Amino acid sequence: MNNLFPSSIQKLISQFSKFPTIGPRTAARFVFFLLYSPKEEVKDLIEAILNFRKSIKICSFCFNPFESSNAGETGFCKYCSNPARDRSMLCVVEKETDLYSLEQTGKYKGLYFILGGTVASLKQEDIQKLRIKELLERIKNPTIPGASFKEIIIATNPTTEGIATSLYLKRALKEFDIKITKLGLGLPIGGELEYADQETLSSALEERK
Amino acid sequence: MNNLFPSSIQKLISQFSKFPTIGPRTAARFVFFLLYSPKEEVKDLIEAILNFRKSIKICSFCFNPFESSNAGETGFCKYCSNPARDRSMLCVVEKETDLYSLEQTGKYKGLYFILGGTVASLKQEDIQKLRIKELLERIKNPTIPGASFKEIIIATNPTTEGIATSLYLKRALKEFDIKITKLGLGLPIGGELEYADQETLSSALEERK
Amino acid sequence: MNNLFPSSIQKLISQFSKFPTIGPRTAARFVFFLLYSPKEEVKDLIEAILNFRKSIKICSFCFNPFESSNAGETGFCKYCSNPARDRSMLCVVEKETDLYSLEQTGKYKGLYFILGGTVASLKQEDIQKLRIKELLERIKNPTIPGASFKEIIIATNPTTEGIATSLYLKRALKEFDIKITKLGLGLPIGGELEYADQETLSSALEERK
Amino acid sequence: MNNLFPSSIQKLISQFSKFPTIGPRTAARFVFFLLYSPKEEVKDLIEAILNFRKSIKICSFCFNPFESSNAGETGFCKYCSNPARDRSMLCVVEKETDLYSLEQTGKYKGLYFILGGTVASLKQEDIQKLRIKELLERIKNPTIPGASFKEIIIATNPTTEGIATSLYLKRALKEFDIKITKLGLGLPIGGELEYADQETLSSALEERK
Repeated sequence: MNNLFPSSIQKLISQFSKFPTIGPRTAARFVFFLLYSPKEEVKDLIEAILNFRKSIKICSFCFNPFESSNAGETGFCKYCSNPARDRSMLCVVEKETDLYSLEQTGKYKGLYFILGGTVASLKQEDIQKLRIKELLERIKNPTIPGASFKEIIIATNPTTEGIATSLYLKRALKEFDIKITKLGLGLPIGGELEYADQETLSSALEERK
Repeated sequence: MNNLFPSSIQKLISQFSKFPTIGPRTAARFVFFLLYSPKEEVKDLIEAILNFRKSIKICSFCFNPFESSNAGETGFCKYCSNPARDRSMLCVVEKETDLYSLEQTGKYKGLYFILGGTVASLKQEDIQKLRIKELLERIKNPTIPGASFKEIIIATNPTTEGIATSLYLKRALKEFDIKITKLGLGLPIGGELEYADQETLSSALEERK
Repeated sequence: MNNLFPSSIQKLISQFSKFPTIGPRTAARFVFFLLYSPKEEVKDLIEAILNFRKSIKICSFCFNPFESSNAGETGFCKYCSNPARDRSMLCVVEKETDLYSLEQTGKYKGLYFILGGTVASLKQEDIQKLRIKELLERIKNPTIPGASFKEIIIATNPTTEGIATSLYLKRALKEFDIKITKLGLGLPIGGELEYADQETLSSALEERK
Repeated sequence: MNNLFPSSIQKLISQFSKFPTIGPRTAARFVFFLLYSPKEEVKDLIEAILNFRKSIKICSFCFNPFESSNAGETGFCKYCSNPARDRSMLCVVEKETDLYSLEQTGKYKGLYFILGGTVASLKQEDIQKLRIKELLERIKNPTIPGASFKEIIIATNPTTEGIATSLYLKRALKEFDIKITKLGLGLPIGGELEYADQETLSSALEERK
């Protein structure tokens, strides 16, 4: 469809096509949506983009983004600065949305650490993209008052990359005398043995208890 | 997930959730995508939005958006101002993307008119939201040099609303001594009788030729 | 899963796996369904299979299967033997289920002819698998009293093979002085220009009326 | 479509429509498939049905179906009669196909017991449809030489019914001094936190190790 649209529409379609999960067809729908939106709403959108980029800070402990207006001197996010959280537990997740997914369950009350991704290979150059050094530092010397970790939950996704990263982390954390756990693997709630793949069933057998 | 995110992130999620087809989960992915995009790219996006809103004009004949820098004195889009197009044919579509879909086939060489939607009911207040008055005016008195319509193709979608609108248009256009056609209905290419619904099969039978 | 099952179960899974659309997993579900069905129901199933094979005859005009107990001397199915049907129209379909799909619309009142498939290529050996010779004979000399065709509708599916077969038929039928039509092509009811493929849109434009 | 088909075809469509996952449209395809199958193949199918009903026996210990020609005096299936299996472990599954799914992983080497379903409620009349009494008897007094259970794995599906049944079983088995386990719950291999439902994530957290 590309060469049919006027160039400034085409340019914006290209921009929206970079958004995760968005192809050119949906990007075009975004552009026509904006073309006929009231001027005021377009202004609101742009301000929301500019504003969030300015007002979001990254937590100095866990790398979770948070409203800078809420930051005290320490630069901690709301989980790291909340004294009611269990500061003996640390949950290592791949990315922000994983933190929010776990938080939504209401079952975890400890601290988090956002690793910044996973690695496909264990090449040094890949691993250096993750915040492994920062993780080790924070475990050794937690800057949060009263924090001292007795359990570290490795909560990377059980994808090929997440499992590889999890194994790497487990080894890297061996130097500490801390219990290292990982999320349970097995059948999801509502799942059925008949439709589970062999790897998941094998995990479900191994992780029985 | 809403109350978990920092407020400025939540605000932007709300904005993106208004985009067509986008729910809060995908909107959150957009926001984290933008959070970690280089400053330069966010600036490019905002400029692309501002720029397209400024530089796009609406064609004074067919309501197709076009680059204002291309506009001569007449304010016509590239289809309306192209003397090679067949100015004896007019194709009435619901919206911009339908025009581009037809244009992509390369099979239609006439002019277009963008109706601006369809109506669920034939209530006067609904119908007034469409550009029916403008359509009748342009047929009576086409402002494009040399234009004089011998055929008008009603190319609304064969949805319930599109069909109702098409019937309304057909009646409204009866006053002109012009051939009125509509797009062929029937089995799509690659379709099968066995899986077609009864209405489509009935159309395919009626429209046989 | 194959070598896990007892051999007589495995054998029946293989049989059901030959059924259209059925893979080994669903075939296994059939077998366990039958394993625990009451003896009486299994007997009913087997009798239904044996009985339908015995009692179904193929119409001597259109090749439509019908209950032999209903056959008079002519061996005609209920459509061919019904004097209320329009014996000036003949609709050529690929297979039985297409006949039933058209019949369900209630819009067609003529006779049918079941071609027995479509051809991927126009090689003589492929074409000979179809009932083309029989079709030509029946048009020349309809054995149904009062039949004399004024229109032949070619109702093959608009798939690649169906279209090729349709073109071949059209040429083969040129020798007769009979109107040859085909089912309408275009957007299905409920379809949208935006999501239609280019070929379907091109057809919809060409078949406008 | 029903009243369109000849009655003996309609009768067979009804029979096939009782098969699991099969609706009338697919059932009709089965019938036309059989109509045009060579006589020999229809005979083979019927023989395979009759033969498997005759030759399959149900294991006197675990209720697994097996080829009767393989049965010794004991009436045990191939898992129960195999001295190489670990006769200190018993895995309780809902149905036959679950046994085969676990067997396919190659990770379980103990014995099985097929419960015969799950219960939606814990009403006495529902529970009596399951083979609970038989299960308790076999644990108390395993008829398989050398069998003495040290672990019982409850491997019902983590569906609402399977979980209810699992809880009921756990209580019923408390009278024995045997380790009772259940399959691991959590994220399936390849799953992602972001797309997991809250219940599964909660399980994954609780079952971490």
